[in-house]
Amino acid sequence: MELVPGNTLITATPQEGRELALAMARKSVGAIQPDAEMRQAFRPGYAGSADSLTMAAQVVAIEFATIAAANGYWR
Amino acid sequence: MELVPGNTLITATPQEGRELALAMARKSVGAIQPDAEMRQAFRPGYAGSADSLTMAAQVVAIEFATIAAANGYWR
Amino acid sequence: MELVPGNTLITATPQEGRELALAMARKSVGAIQPDAEMRQAFRPGYAGSADSLTMAAQVVAIEFATIAAANGYWR
Amino acid sequence: MELVPGNTLITATPQEGRELALAMARKSVGAIQPDAEMRQAFRPGYAGSADSLTMAAQVVAIEFATIAAANGYWR
Amino acid sequence: MELVPGNTLITATPQEGRELALAMARKSVGAIQPDAEMRQAFRPGYAGSADSLTMAAQVVAIEFATIAAANGYWR
Amino acid sequence: MELVPGNTLITATPQEGRELALAMARKSVGAIQPDAEMRQAFRPGYAGSADSLTMAAQVVAIEFATIAAANGYWR
Repeated sequence: MELVPGNTLITATPQEGRELALAMARKSVGAIQPDAEMRQAFRPGYAGSADSLTMAAQVVAIEFATIAAANGYWR
Repeated sequence: MELVPGNTLITATPQEGRELALAMARKSVGAIQPDAEMRQAFRPGYAGSADSLTMAAQVVAIEFATIAAANGYWR
Repeated sequence: MELVPGNTLITATPQEGRELALAMARKSVGAIQPDAEMRQAFRPGYAGSADSLTMAAQVVAIEFATIAAANGYWR
Repeated sequence: MELVPGNTLITATPQEGRELALAMARKSVGAIQPDAEMRQAFRPGYAGSADSLTMAAQVVAIEFATIAAANGYWR
Repeated sequence: MELVPGNTLITATPQEGRELALAMARKSVGAIQPDAEMRQAFRPGYAGSADSLTMAAQVVAIEFATIAAANGYWR
Repeated sequence: MELVPGNTLITATPQEGRELALAMARKSVGAIQPDAEMRQAFRPGYAGSADSLTMAAQVVAIEFATIAAANGYWR
């Protein structure tokens, strides 16, 4: 199963880095839970509670921290 | 969907960095949940419980850590 | 709204860094929730449960990590 | 009990780093809980709630941050 | 209120660094909640649930990460 | 009370670093809660829920990040 789309942490822009962070979080969940309904966390349209969304946003923030460091913060 | 306003982590001041952290957290939630009502986490006026607010503040702190490092801590 | 008191992460001492961490966490909550009653998380006298206080302490720890790095750990 | 498969954090690719992150999270749980049923957190097919999956994804993100740094982000 | 005992992050040993991490977490809670009963989180003898203790241990781990970096990991 | 077994973060291998992370998390809990029954979080055989185990695994991941950095990632 592909866990890191493109198999690299390097992206051209912060926007692409953020998209990668979202994708990687989603792939983690997919690696653990193959059932599509459960897997909707992190997917566009996921209708979790506000707290569920905050928790998901936190994972994205943590993934992004790694990606940003990998890219020298796109400075 | 725009996930990083301005597509850069570089800001002139810590204040602007903090505003970016709030905006990025909000955009993450927007990427996952397009429904406006759910999306209010991180938005001014969000009336979650004290614990919900603490959880949201934690995401902001994590986003800010990345932004601050990107900016050499504005030293 | 002021999110970083003094608009700098630089402080003279760890004690002042810690006070800044507390203030920044509080300001995040204030940016999201303008209602004073909800906003009491992180405020002196906040009577949340032990777990709520632990969660708040975690946010302070994360903010402080950034501030400490910004200050070269006051070495 | 083996906690770090291969006893190294160095991997050839981000994909392998991600697999190691998943494996290390799983091994932690195994070190604490030897009962197979409980241990299913982090295992493919684990049918936890969306929030449980988000929590598991967060641990993977934290493990991966360490592995990515160890590998110089595979730059 | 004293938030960083000794007003320094520098300690002679990892053991002292760990004690400082515990003390700083405790002081955070004290800054937010002046009531002694609530404040028992992080105090020896605190009888929270296993999850409450895990949450407290996480805050100690985060504080310690900062202190360890400040001390060059006592290498 | 001993909080860092051996009073050093330096270990010969990632495996030993991981064992130290588990031990340090366990010692934190022991410093806060001297009652053996409560203290079982992080101990082999702890029968918490899947979410409790995920939370415990997260603390181990955070402790390990510090230990891995201290050891230059055993590169």
